[in-house]
Amino acid sequence: MLSNNQLKLLVSLQQKKYRQKYRKFIVEGEKLVGELLLQKTFQTEALFGTERWADANVALAPYFLQKFNAVTEPELKKISALTTPNQVLALVQMPDTEPIPVFPRTGFHFFLDGLRDPGNLGAVLRVADWFGMSWVCCAPDTADLYNPKTVQASMGAVLRVKSLECSLPELLAANPNMPVLGAVMDGENLFQTLLPANGIVVIGNEGAGIRPEVAQLLTRHITIPRAPDGHAESLNAAVAAGIIAAWVYAASSS
Amino acid sequence: MLSNNQLKLLVSLQQKKYRQKYRKFIVEGEKLVGELLLQKTFQTEALFGTERWADANVALAPYFLQKFNAVTEPELKKISALTTPNQVLALVQMPDTEPIPVFPRTGFHFFLDGLRDPGNLGAVLRVADWFGMSWVCCAPDTADLYNPKTVQASMGAVLRVKSLECSLPELLAANPNMPVLGAVMDGENLFQTLLPANGIVVIGNEGAGIRPEVAQLLTRHITIPRAPDGHAESLNAAVAAGIIAAWVYAASSS
Repeated sequence: MLSNNQLKLLVSLQQKKYRQKYRKFIVEGEKLVGELLLQKTFQTEALFGTERWADANVALAPYFLQKFNAVTEPELKKISALTTPNQVLALVQMPDTEPIPVFPRTGFHFFLDGLRDPGNLGAVLRVADWFGMSWVCCAPDTADLYNPKTVQASMGAVLRVKSLECSLPELLAANPNMPVLGAVMDGENLFQTLLPANGIVVIGNEGAGIRPEVAQLLTRHITIPRAPDGHAESLNAAVAAGIIAAWVYAASSS
Repeated sequence: MLSNNQLKLLVSLQQKKYRQKYRKFIVEGEKLVGELLLQKTFQTEALFGTERWADANVALAPYFLQKFNAVTEPELKKISALTTPNQVLALVQMPDTEPIPVFPRTGFHFFLDGLRDPGNLGAVLRVADWFGMSWVCCAPDTADLYNPKTVQASMGAVLRVKSLECSLPELLAANPNMPVLGAVMDGENLFQTLLPANGIVVIGNEGAGIRPEVAQLLTRHITIPRAPDGHAESLNAAVAAGIIAAWVYAASSS
């Protein structure tokens, strides 16, 4: 049974301003909620699930008895951001804002310079989570990490990869002399260049690319080479992020 | 001015069954329509644009005088599949179905085994278009190449990359002995294996991966290695396609 206040709160969290106001967001579906309940960084405040989900997850009951609210499928449909709601939805507290990290001497991190599509942001979080990049730092106008579409597209990576909103100068103030790699149109051939052992990989906005004020801070301009018979003007931003991450990972692990 | 019949036809083309029935689809926005008008494979049947677009594109007038229909912004909004309609929309004929291609002895092509998300399909088309892969072959249950979301996400690559719907056995009947590479969880390390000079790269469905009957036809099982401290279960399908395409391109061009 869902109260009107719960309904109102949960639906409001599909909008960024309410997520920021209440410092809460939503994680949906059997798989993602299962992962949520197994980790310790994010606090789950309440669960809204079908009786079927509860029956299939009795093992979790001791931990969540006080937090579980049985809802009907029609109720779930009302609060879900998914086209096809999937059994359970969790109300989750946003973690406290992390201080600007000081990065270790090895390894790479992303700085996203205004990536706008939540699907792309989710895919980049998966890339970071796959290649063991511990931080994804986002310029303030990047898509919201806790947008339901980002959470879904990240397949749970948003719960595992560390992230924060900051500017590149702030990041560099805490990490002076850190190599800053950016994908541009006329840089060094990624496939033929010697890469540093650590660095920040900057990914620009889908349409506009890396902003001039951020481009000024790049220490390495790299380019994913296009085939002589290729005609695309650009790659999807998450695909480009994946190719660069794969390359720096392969170079550092070989 | 938009007639009721035009309105009905254009709106219906947002659904696959009508695209297939009429063998027509829609290309939207100044940039994509600009590219459409410069290429010769696809026949443009009609253009629906604002007066502003017409004024900015007078150079195109001689070719399109008979095909251009001036519409108002509110009319454009009615026929557009975009959240923010962008000046012009073209009604385009689907090309005739291509025969199963016989691939050359070098180069790679994609076979998409039921990729479902039009955004991912569009991103894969861009990958193919970037790395000069001439064909993208799609299993019949793959997302529709002419879905408005695919067309937009492909950034015009759908107009340049050759594509067809077929099964992998059909493709292999025309190309016996062609290496078939598929990304699986426990294959050879992509970054450490010697790749063939040509082949078909199979990309599976977002959730289910490559179907068993297709997996049986793989001649090379490859894996994008996950970092020891990485935790993601998988990569986004378009990102995985991009990494493999980048790798085979780098290997063949070095």
